[in-house]
Amino acid sequence: MNYKAIIEDVYNTVRNEEDAGKLASYIPELAKVDPEKFGVHFSAIDRFEFGIGDYRDKFSIQSITKVLTLCLAYKILGEKIWERLGVEPSGTPFNSLIQLEADKGVPRNPFINAGALVICDILLSHLDNPKADFLEFIRNVSGNPGLNYSPKIADSEKSVGYRNMALCYFIKSFGNIKNDPLEVLDFYFCSCSLEMDCSELSRTFLFLANGGRKLFDPTPILTKSQTKRVNALMQTCGFYDESGEFSFKVGLPGKSGVGGGIIAIHPSQYSIGVWSPKLNEKGNSFKGMKFLEYFTTNTQLSIF
Amino acid sequence: MNYKAIIEDVYNTVRNEEDAGKLASYIPELAKVDPEKFGVHFSAIDRFEFGIGDYRDKFSIQSITKVLTLCLAYKILGEKIWERLGVEPSGTPFNSLIQLEADKGVPRNPFINAGALVICDILLSHLDNPKADFLEFIRNVSGNPGLNYSPKIADSEKSVGYRNMALCYFIKSFGNIKNDPLEVLDFYFCSCSLEMDCSELSRTFLFLANGGRKLFDPTPILTKSQTKRVNALMQTCGFYDESGEFSFKVGLPGKSGVGGGIIAIHPSQYSIGVWSPKLNEKGNSFKGMKFLEYFTTNTQLSIF
Amino acid sequence: MNYKAIIEDVYNTVRNEEDAGKLASYIPELAKVDPEKFGVHFSAIDRFEFGIGDYRDKFSIQSITKVLTLCLAYKILGEKIWERLGVEPSGTPFNSLIQLEADKGVPRNPFINAGALVICDILLSHLDNPKADFLEFIRNVSGNPGLNYSPKIADSEKSVGYRNMALCYFIKSFGNIKNDPLEVLDFYFCSCSLEMDCSELSRTFLFLANGGRKLFDPTPILTKSQTKRVNALMQTCGFYDESGEFSFKVGLPGKSGVGGGIIAIHPSQYSIGVWSPKLNEKGNSFKGMKFLEYFTTNTQLSIF
Amino acid sequence: MNYKAIIEDVYNTVRNEEDAGKLASYIPELAKVDPEKFGVHFSAIDRFEFGIGDYRDKFSIQSITKVLTLCLAYKILGEKIWERLGVEPSGTPFNSLIQLEADKGVPRNPFINAGALVICDILLSHLDNPKADFLEFIRNVSGNPGLNYSPKIADSEKSVGYRNMALCYFIKSFGNIKNDPLEVLDFYFCSCSLEMDCSELSRTFLFLANGGRKLFDPTPILTKSQTKRVNALMQTCGFYDESGEFSFKVGLPGKSGVGGGIIAIHPSQYSIGVWSPKLNEKGNSFKGMKFLEYFTTNTQLSIF
Repeated sequence: MNYKAIIEDVYNTVRNEEDAGKLASYIPELAKVDPEKFGVHFSAIDRFEFGIGDYRDKFSIQSITKVLTLCLAYKILGEKIWERLGVEPSGTPFNSLIQLEADKGVPRNPFINAGALVICDILLSHLDNPKADFLEFIRNVSGNPGLNYSPKIADSEKSVGYRNMALCYFIKSFGNIKNDPLEVLDFYFCSCSLEMDCSELSRTFLFLANGGRKLFDPTPILTKSQTKRVNALMQTCGFYDESGEFSFKVGLPGKSGVGGGIIAIHPSQYSIGVWSPKLNEKGNSFKGMKFLEYFTTNTQLSIF
Repeated sequence: MNYKAIIEDVYNTVRNEEDAGKLASYIPELAKVDPEKFGVHFSAIDRFEFGIGDYRDKFSIQSITKVLTLCLAYKILGEKIWERLGVEPSGTPFNSLIQLEADKGVPRNPFINAGALVICDILLSHLDNPKADFLEFIRNVSGNPGLNYSPKIADSEKSVGYRNMALCYFIKSFGNIKNDPLEVLDFYFCSCSLEMDCSELSRTFLFLANGGRKLFDPTPILTKSQTKRVNALMQTCGFYDESGEFSFKVGLPGKSGVGGGIIAIHPSQYSIGVWSPKLNEKGNSFKGMKFLEYFTTNTQLSIF
Repeated sequence: MNYKAIIEDVYNTVRNEEDAGKLASYIPELAKVDPEKFGVHFSAIDRFEFGIGDYRDKFSIQSITKVLTLCLAYKILGEKIWERLGVEPSGTPFNSLIQLEADKGVPRNPFINAGALVICDILLSHLDNPKADFLEFIRNVSGNPGLNYSPKIADSEKSVGYRNMALCYFIKSFGNIKNDPLEVLDFYFCSCSLEMDCSELSRTFLFLANGGRKLFDPTPILTKSQTKRVNALMQTCGFYDESGEFSFKVGLPGKSGVGGGIIAIHPSQYSIGVWSPKLNEKGNSFKGMKFLEYFTTNTQLSIF
Repeated sequence: MNYKAIIEDVYNTVRNEEDAGKLASYIPELAKVDPEKFGVHFSAIDRFEFGIGDYRDKFSIQSITKVLTLCLAYKILGEKIWERLGVEPSGTPFNSLIQLEADKGVPRNPFINAGALVICDILLSHLDNPKADFLEFIRNVSGNPGLNYSPKIADSEKSVGYRNMALCYFIKSFGNIKNDPLEVLDFYFCSCSLEMDCSELSRTFLFLANGGRKLFDPTPILTKSQTKRVNALMQTCGFYDESGEFSFKVGLPGKSGVGGGIIAIHPSQYSIGVWSPKLNEKGNSFKGMKFLEYFTTNTQLSIF
């Protein structure tokens, strides 16, 4: 398979298509990003790598972080975390409170905001220095000591994060947040502010295509079974109420962020990071979705 | 991989576990089935086959039929069918009207009852003799001219199918059922009454593991792309509001029926049919789910 | 109080205001009504009566019938009827299935369609000849042997009444409809097709302003307590999800119908029937609501 | 009418009935109240007054305050307040977020918590010293300079008020809270901590039975029209999702609080304050509801 040629071809096709998406406007700092940015980076477990476009520009990975906070909580506590949240797709927008009310404060899955808040709460209870410890975990997983939070983005999101505050207090009212909601929110906003470029993104997540291990390090980050389960969750829940669409058209586990980034995983094969800031109606990168759809169509490879 | 040994091993383990499930009671005829039945049949694209337990006993495949009605409608109309229904998991029980009201009569996906009714409506508009034509399609796909409906089961379901009647009239009120609701319901109940044993089940669905073709017949039933999409839909929507759990624990596309049957597909590898009539709280076969969970755990193979 | 002068004054004011409403379009026969019709008739328990405009034109009273079917069922069975439905406002549109699903088939109150269907089911179980017996009850209450159903309206509504069919089968699926849904629906559509003019309307309902008795007949139709309770229900539930607005602006118990009629009751004082076919967004007569708002404002009398 | 005899009679009957209610447990300070307390006080506009039982014991009026904050906001801004909230019954429990999500942050009415928070927000924007100014308003309306907040109750509620915090941030996320949510919540919890005994309660609310004026003071607190509208709102929305039941059984406008107090108004006649701390399932005083039901049954007087 000539991945390089296919990526170049699809990249050029999508770059020239009209972008019907819009910049995320609700977080002030995100609205300042250059909307024309478009980058892709591919990392295979056979060590082949290839990047194109703005793949070396940093962006805010936002909700893609939710996979990483999940992995750390899962690593620490194992299957016990599922006492606090579910593994079902939500069928409703990412920040819905309706389902949470019906489910008495137990979030449907770790990739909606409610679930990520509960995961952050779990980490707060088990880490000595949550922000520093989580950053160290990310740097270790990525093999990249230069990764960092963006305090400017975190502050910007905190200044308008009323919906997430509502979610966190709501879950607290059901007793499913154990720590002070303000501390949970502070950690949550900080974790979402992680910045990566496409190459860092695809390299960081390659362990999920590799059975839970980094390429050159036999120490497992997650067990094989945990890795499969995280991939399964990305498949069914990674794109809010567009998860079915992504699964249908792209056919790979993945996770999007409101900063316009998407990571997708082909188990036993590769990870691919895509970034384009303008979002479709469901809050997922318009060109990122297009790129991945054409990419798996052209490679004729998906998990299905 | 010694599939035979693994299947035997897992079958014996699960057979001896306590069955916390309950027989479907809402359809009178289904409540008469022997609750202790338990069968498994495996069909690989390399032609290896293996069955164990009650794999030659016929049962009502019920909602598993929804995959087959979808395939026929998809074959006839292509992507146009998605103008009438979606591809997102529903996040609510299989016969919920709530979502349908919010979505103005457009069902979330073809595997909830509402979606299957719309698919039946599409087939009614495009088939000369819907019941006969659909049966011929199934017989052709399975290569088994002996497959048939069970009028007794269809009548039994029709006699108490008030929820499905409500669903059908409700969709009709939004204009998304084109034919007479009574005809749509009649065809729907008939299609759900199809009877197979586990070997017929796994053989019938093998084309979904084989890129859309039967083993010995190059004529495609579905295109490669359609096949992938049907598998993706089974992955995200095949088990009602337990789809995430099945994906998480089993890691294969699949579809369950209230008769206690489950079909699961490993693309490019095999299909496996399981049957045990007692259902868990979500309406899926209790032992069937257990068997498939242990099976993919022991084979250490899933799509993730 | 010079009711005549106030009615004339308000009538002329409202007649000259722009009518932002629209004719009910979903029932074909109702869409044929002259949209400019506007009539009012007032009946006091001191025997004063006054009519203005098109108050002698017959129209389809539609959902106003729900008060009368309730009264007959209440008369026959007493407080036992509340085992089958509630007395709370619904907070949702008149034909919503959402609440019914949450409440397991127990309608919120007798004035939403679901509740009226349950009342019709109760009547079917207790009347020998439901249609004839109900008509006799109405003729007796009104003292008017000329009142009748409109088979044309009933047929027209039945031809498109998919939402009500869905409601009825849905309640049946919870076991809260005891008779054949088709018979319940037939009786329901028939009862809604009752035709009255404004004078017949206000005279028929005067017993609710008179403690449950007709003016010249000491035999109670309802007990005093039942009468108060029916009035209370009209106050809180008579206008679907505009009940609060009507209570707030008009301050009287009342009930509207999709034919453009409204009946309002001032206990111990009068009943007033208003008719204008164009409906506001909530399905209540636009000019009828306006008239009653100005009328109670000008009389400075309401129950509050 | 011998109100004294009827009150004594009903009081003794209800005192001796079993109390199936339970103390509010979610606010720690409220759980310390003596559950056997039971008091009633009646104030008529003809100046007759009568109290029985523990009618001189102070209690936390809690949500009854919502009528008073509404009155002050209505007095200051007039009908403009309805741009920020509705007048419809909610049909759901008092602290539901579901409806708020569907209605984009516009609360259904001023008596659910969401609506009261918006009213507090309005007051914050228009009062120089909100807490002091509101207290002065209450003292003026009641003619009682001794009325006061209970800082202990306010702090107790604030310490566990996660649901209200969630509500407030949620409305803020829709832009319908203009001030800092923490300030709104602080004022809200303070206002709910007002303490009165039954005599203070009935005297304070007598102006709503008197067309908006105090007995001995011609200065209107509200206009006649506003007074009627506040009464209408209490009728349709005063008891959360038991408003219909209260209207049905008691037939008077009223408002309950989680401290076990209830105020009921008979326009042009009287106000009556009842207090008994144990609550029924819907969060309304068990004995308070019973007392008022029997009271209006025995007087044979209600607004209907």
